[in-house]
Amino acid sequence: MASALTEAGGRTRLFVEEDLAEGAAFALGPEQSHYLLHVLRAKSGDRVLLFNGRDGEWQAEIAAARRALTVACRVQTRRQAGVPDIWLLFAPVKKTPADYLAQKATELGAARLQPVFTRRTIVTRVNRERLSANAAEAAEQSDRLSVPQTPQPVTLEKALAAWPAERRLYFCDEGGEAQPLAEAARGTSGPAAILTGPEGGFDPAERAMLRACPFVVPVTLGPRILRADTAALAALAIWQSVAGDFT
Amino acid sequence: MASALTEAGGRTRLFVEEDLAEGAAFALGPEQSHYLLHVLRAKSGDRVLLFNGRDGEWQAEIAAARRALTVACRVQTRRQAGVPDIWLLFAPVKKTPADYLAQKATELGAARLQPVFTRRTIVTRVNRERLSANAAEAAEQSDRLSVPQTPQPVTLEKALAAWPAERRLYFCDEGGEAQPLAEAARGTSGPAAILTGPEGGFDPAERAMLRACPFVVPVTLGPRILRADTAALAALAIWQSVAGDFT
Repeated sequence: MASALTEAGGRTRLFVEEDLAEGAAFALGPEQSHYLLHVLRAKSGDRVLLFNGRDGEWQAEIAAARRALTVACRVQTRRQAGVPDIWLLFAPVKKTPADYLAQKATELGAARLQPVFTRRTIVTRVNRERLSANAAEAAEQSDRLSVPQTPQPVTLEKALAAWPAERRLYFCDEGGEAQPLAEAARGTSGPAAILTGPEGGFDPAERAMLRACPFVVPVTLGPRILRADTAALAALAIWQSVAGDFT
Repeated sequence: MASALTEAGGRTRLFVEEDLAEGAAFALGPEQSHYLLHVLRAKSGDRVLLFNGRDGEWQAEIAAARRALTVACRVQTRRQAGVPDIWLLFAPVKKTPADYLAQKATELGAARLQPVFTRRTIVTRVNRERLSANAAEAAEQSDRLSVPQTPQPVTLEKALAAWPAERRLYFCDEGGEAQPLAEAARGTSGPAAILTGPEGGFDPAERAMLRACPFVVPVTLGPRILRADTAALAALAIWQSVAGDFT
């Protein structure tokens, strides 16, 4: 009987930390081993695709053991390729929308997911492990060769104080004068970032602080009120479509 | 003590079926009455905003009764305004992603949410009541003056056979040659629709059938594999940003 792995046409992809090169072989961790053995019923000789964010994508052969599986790289199937240099800065949201946001932003090709605490942010803790796990899983399923960076949360003040001047920061502002994002970003190149706020929006002092920064470009996402996670995903999709790799 | 309704600055919005006009007064249904009375602790004299998709938005005054609340229209706060004429045709997805899809698509300004059964669609039933309820709630919260239409699900064949020729149908195709959606839609006007497929994509016969229709425009959403709901929301956001009301 063919394993579920074979039936999937060898398209199962795993994100690993180890270096990938011809002849490289190593044991998979317990979670990935469990998934392959007990969910996909992997057998010795089955193939999977591996990527680590550095060495491209490799087809590897599984050698079964009792509990841990070993994989041996056979051939590189794709060279390493990154995503456009776009960061998403977002005010943390509750658990379920946070999972969703991490997955969708990864599919949409964000290079970095940066939680930012603002004055009206209600959520006070970010589960970074969960954020990374969601990003890795979405990278596996969306054919990415890299997992977004998920740095420590910072306050908005600190993020702006340490901001790299050459990176344009599109500030999705619900009030006040602003250009549509598609117009502001169309045809631009170079590093960029998108900032979306919490459910209650940014407070007036934050808005003034943002608008005073030379690298900040205030933008609008249309006439309706978008939830925090909708705004983040819409902005990413729009940016990719006019300045990123949807073009 | 001020009610939660007053504290919210009178921004509570309710979608109703009744006609709205100066002096119009009627009882709210049990769910809305419960929400106002027991969640927001509404009192006689409190104000809410009402819309029905036809008569604009009205500020109304609450008259408390024991169980059902009565509302009386006072003044029109906004004239009726629609959303751009963009439909979303989507292969039904499981319950949680379906809720999410209905809410987000409403926020992003879809005029119609049309479930479409394709050959690889796994979900076989659509809970239309739930779809409408999600759309109505998202319309209330996103400041829309209309709720998207949620017609009966149809098969892809039937949808195409009855298609109005003047409506461009952007077919989000994962394989094959296609223009980026932003390029295909930029600066266009007139009725449009977006079609996204199920998790497994469209099958070859469906793709051939779609590409043979004169009103179909095959488009791409970039190099990564997007989940069904991500693709639908990304496409709507992009369309709104180049041809809809984000511009």
